[in-house]
Amino acid sequence: MPAPRTLAQQLASRQREISVAEFFERNRQILGFDNPQRAVLTAVKEAVDNSLDACEEAKVLPEIRVEIAREGVDRVRVAVDDNGPGILRREIPNVFGRLLYGSRFHANRQARGQQGIGISAAVLFAGLTTGRPARVTSKVAEEEAAHVLEIALDTQKNLPHVVSEDLELWDRPHGTRIELLLKAKYVRGRQSPFEYLKNTAIVNPHARLILLEPDGTKATYERVSSEVPAIPHEVAPHPYGLELGELASVLKASGRPTLSEALTRDLAGVSPRSAREVLEQSHLPARRPPSSLNGEEVERLLAALHGASLLPPSTEALSPIGGLLIKRGLRNVLGEVRPEFFAPPVSRPPRIRGGFPFLVEVGLVYGGNLPPDQPVQLLRFANRVPLLFQQGACAITNAVQGLDWRRYGLEQRGGSGVPIGPCVILVHVASTKVPFTSEAKEAIAEDPEIDRELTLALQASARHLRTHLSRKARRNFASEKFAIILKILPKLAEKTSRLVGEPVPDLTAVITKIMDVVHVETAVAPASASGRCAAIQVTNYTPRARLLELFVEMPLELLAKARFSPEPAGVDPDLGRAWWTLARLAPSERTPVRVSFPEGQDVEWADLDWYVAGVDEGHLLGAEALPGDWEVRLPRAVIEAAAEDAGSDEAEGEVDYDAAEAGAKVGDDE
Amino acid sequence: MPAPRTLAQQLASRQREISVAEFFERNRQILGFDNPQRAVLTAVKEAVDNSLDACEEAKVLPEIRVEIAREGVDRVRVAVDDNGPGILRREIPNVFGRLLYGSRFHANRQARGQQGIGISAAVLFAGLTTGRPARVTSKVAEEEAAHVLEIALDTQKNLPHVVSEDLELWDRPHGTRIELLLKAKYVRGRQSPFEYLKNTAIVNPHARLILLEPDGTKATYERVSSEVPAIPHEVAPHPYGLELGELASVLKASGRPTLSEALTRDLAGVSPRSAREVLEQSHLPARRPPSSLNGEEVERLLAALHGASLLPPSTEALSPIGGLLIKRGLRNVLGEVRPEFFAPPVSRPPRIRGGFPFLVEVGLVYGGNLPPDQPVQLLRFANRVPLLFQQGACAITNAVQGLDWRRYGLEQRGGSGVPIGPCVILVHVASTKVPFTSEAKEAIAEDPEIDRELTLALQASARHLRTHLSRKARRNFASEKFAIILKILPKLAEKTSRLVGEPVPDLTAVITKIMDVVHVETAVAPASASGRCAAIQVTNYTPRARLLELFVEMPLELLAKARFSPEPAGVDPDLGRAWWTLARLAPSERTPVRVSFPEGQDVEWADLDWYVAGVDEGHLLGAEALPGDWEVRLPRAVIEAAAEDAGSDEAEGEVDYDAAEAGAKVGDDE
Repeated sequence: MPAPRTLAQQLASRQREISVAEFFERNRQILGFDNPQRAVLTAVKEAVDNSLDACEEAKVLPEIRVEIAREGVDRVRVAVDDNGPGILRREIPNVFGRLLYGSRFHANRQARGQQGIGISAAVLFAGLTTGRPARVTSKVAEEEAAHVLEIALDTQKNLPHVVSEDLELWDRPHGTRIELLLKAKYVRGRQSPFEYLKNTAIVNPHARLILLEPDGTKATYERVSSEVPAIPHEVAPHPYGLELGELASVLKASGRPTLSEALTRDLAGVSPRSAREVLEQSHLPARRPPSSLNGEEVERLLAALHGASLLPPSTEALSPIGGLLIKRGLRNVLGEVRPEFFAPPVSRPPRIRGGFPFLVEVGLVYGGNLPPDQPVQLLRFANRVPLLFQQGACAITNAVQGLDWRRYGLEQRGGSGVPIGPCVILVHVASTKVPFTSEAKEAIAEDPEIDRELTLALQASARHLRTHLSRKARRNFASEKFAIILKILPKLAEKTSRLVGEPVPDLTAVITKIMDVVHVETAVAPASASGRCAAIQVTNYTPRARLLELFVEMPLELLAKARFSPEPAGVDPDLGRAWWTLARLAPSERTPVRVSFPEGQDVEWADLDWYVAGVDEGHLLGAEALPGDWEVRLPRAVIEAAAEDAGSDEAEGEVDYDAAEAGAKVGDDE
Repeated sequence: MPAPRTLAQQLASRQREISVAEFFERNRQILGFDNPQRAVLTAVKEAVDNSLDACEEAKVLPEIRVEIAREGVDRVRVAVDDNGPGILRREIPNVFGRLLYGSRFHANRQARGQQGIGISAAVLFAGLTTGRPARVTSKVAEEEAAHVLEIALDTQKNLPHVVSEDLELWDRPHGTRIELLLKAKYVRGRQSPFEYLKNTAIVNPHARLILLEPDGTKATYERVSSEVPAIPHEVAPHPYGLELGELASVLKASGRPTLSEALTRDLAGVSPRSAREVLEQSHLPARRPPSSLNGEEVERLLAALHGASLLPPSTEALSPIGGLLIKRGLRNVLGEVRPEFFAPPVSRPPRIRGGFPFLVEVGLVYGGNLPPDQPVQLLRFANRVPLLFQQGACAITNAVQGLDWRRYGLEQRGGSGVPIGPCVILVHVASTKVPFTSEAKEAIAEDPEIDRELTLALQASARHLRTHLSRKARRNFASEKFAIILKILPKLAEKTSRLVGEPVPDLTAVITKIMDVVHVETAVAPASASGRCAAIQVTNYTPRARLLELFVEMPLELLAKARFSPEPAGVDPDLGRAWWTLARLAPSERTPVRVSFPEGQDVEWADLDWYVAGVDEGHLLGAEALPGDWEVRLPRAVIEAAAEDAGSDEAEGEVDYDAAEAGAKVGDDE
């Protein structure tokens, strides 16, 4: 071997600093620019995510337009513009022409962009493949002209280079537009901008999104909600899961005069009382300046914090989609497949992971025109952004594959892996810091805490599915039975009447008696100046008198504005429920209930779910039986006592079907 | 909404630069530090990869020792030391305490570490979780003491901080040692340092690796090759797949006086002749200084280069493992499962992707004690480093799943997905720039070029498997037949002899006749001072005279040193083959062949494969029939003419088995 001294010196002479832009230029696949098709999607995605973030911060209902045009054989022009607040002239170069530069990295709140890499990476890729600078237009207020800058990224220095600059009139009152020329390929498909915008619309129902494709096709996703989501607040890091070095940084940067103040103000979840306990346990005086702690003391403090019982994480930093909008978003986009079942969306309470709060939401849709023999469609989202790539590397996929879906009514080979069935599962992970597997932000890294929450949320959704499927099986049986009765009885009556030479009698009462159901019917009046109104009719088509309880469940924001007639017996504003004890209903009797909302209220009647107690689910049509874990308001005994048979003998109305010519055998399954 | 001007200003005031170390501290999952278990593996992996790279550069046979010890409840101490060239004192802080700093990023040749991130990331993680600096020991030559430095990483500045410094005596003549204290968890399992070192040993058979686990267990992987792989040369980027921006950078940095010189010297594969053609086609004068080209001219030049027919990529920058070592590495590590079949390893020629050469190698092992009802075991490697995480996100996995393995004899549901069977598939991707999906370097990104090569290599391996499986089926049938004959004949003879009152005759000749095979037998002499020697015996146990050709195939480096007796009829040093035309063999005749190697030659007899032409594979034991695509050296007619029946009637020796008492029916399947 050569003398090692020489070798070590040779090696040393080659040591060099690597610019972060050089690094990503060489490793552009890490940023999502692996291939010509993905490059278009990544560029669109980074621009649209920034637009949505900016609009949300400005409390503007987003109106975003994406234009994609082919140029030559292998180039694509991408332009994205928005009605956001715009970007000040002096910040434009750095925002678009410098990696690791941004406003959201140091803020501990949920945002789509967090890294300060995305859009500059697209500019880097454009420069690398076509040599063309990005063209950025930005306007910050109605009276001004827009700034138009051409920006390139200097890879060796990771700094922006302004190629040209101009002022221009722009009809947007304010907003930002970016235009890029990329070496890329536009294909419509499973991982295309088309799909990305469709999925973005599901979880951002307040946005209006327009896509112009190279062939001139225009796709518009209209908003189905006109409320801008509340801006998540920045919160201090929570001590649970915080690492030593992070706590040390918090204390160093604190600036508070005393340790006890730093604990309660610079950390989340620490009350003055727990601060006292923690300090006592770590043998640290409350009045010490926080920056004076040495390594060993910070270690003691962290151990005490991890052992203390602190307040749970606040949801303020998070912006969940919410059950109502998940359902509406899915309905809006999946309209054409007419699913038979939208499971009540599941939102888990926020948890802490490495000091950062996160929460999981799951929506599930079943049936209709969804393909029954294909793997279920999994829609993955992180901070309201669709994840279209690297499904196999994602914690969401792993959680879905890890569940035994056979127990919930879907096919699954061997009880693990992606289940088979006419089903769409939407999973949203929201966090102030989503742990992505790479800068391309396409997959969530494995994490025991996140996995646990994902599994719990998926199980809850799956249970809804199981309930639906077993109800459907029962209901199918019941309606088949009724169909047969309605077909046979008139024939029987006609034949018998002919035989005995009498006129055919009116069968309504008999049929009613045999149908044996309580029917809940909703009639919706069209929206009027005085508001929107629905009339509910509960009819007792059973041969016994019934004392029934009627429940309605709806999103909390709707319940707050709902007017009822008659007045409900009770309202639970936290659970979003109201209920009535209906007057005792004799057979064939009915009772009305009215629900109305003030003018302008955005309401979808399908968002109101109706439940009935006092009759089992086999004898209920148009509403669901009260879920097992809901509290019945009337004592069971009272309900039972109120019910009495209409006739002296319930069997009176029975017909000997075996004797009927139809030959169909129908048993009484009560 | 609030005045947008104010908002844009508010947003602007929050814009900040993000240090690359801050970024990775927050996104440590990207570097492979997601959870306590993976943290240990990642730290070990980064240190060992660096050690292997350094030893290779110094042409030292690596001797690497990994010590892992538990400390307290949730901490693990990791120490890795090597016998590499060591690191100069002045470079130690930057190498271990600064992200994006290194010697291999700008070199266009294959190396394990390329990013200048790995080991500094481990130091960052140690500081973050335990507050302890890394302890680095380095010695660059025998006569000096070792430098011992404690190094921490300043996250906000991404700069090293030397906490303490000392000199120490160290018994290693030269080398590097790093010791880290991490918040982590040591578990032995599928994704553990134990597994990582085992797999590292497979693809680095020249390394000696020692692992000391927390419970005191010591695992040693001895080297099975004593040759340090050749150091890959740096090569210039190849124009195929090069992007505009990259070509512009090459020209700008060139320093050559003329464009034509820059094309032939700063790019790979461009001959003076193709340079002339390219310049002509792009209407550029050959004498222009390369840095004087404007964007539009570079574009023209690139288009001409992409259209030109250039020389193929050189393999000099790559360090494939090679067929011999893949087989040996697998045998060394899989020894205990005693696989029945090692497919001849497949090495694809190098290709170009984005200007960088890459190649794919595949090894396949079948049977023995491998579990027959489990998914095949996939061993993924990139630049001789095992990939243990993110299997689902890796191009290698996708290529394996995309192949229909049912056509090659493995089970696979629906013809896609991971196949089922007693099989290990090793895939190695070597490149001067492996496109990893993230900085954790655990999965290779999807790429059409790489996917194509992976598929071709896997198909070639799979064809070997199919051949083996069908041969095995035939051989099983043949040996069952022989077993029956050897059992029945003596009984028949004994009974018949007793009946006719004669002594039992000698059956050898008859059995030989019935066996009807050519047998190739290898006897190996123990290594002696004069070298190593094997005697091959070819026996004609068929009832006909045979003119046979004998072929041997072996690794090229062995063939170069082999001595044969008798002299072979021919040697093909490129294909690694030698062959003999054997003297005409009468029934029961045999002929010997000797192979010997000089003293000290590292040879494994199982690396020599024997083939025979002149008899079909149904009548061959101990060697394989000549593969269909090999050239037979003698004309078929000569072989046929030489063969004649031993007796006047071949049926003479036949026995009417139906008459025998054993009742087993054995037909002649010739």
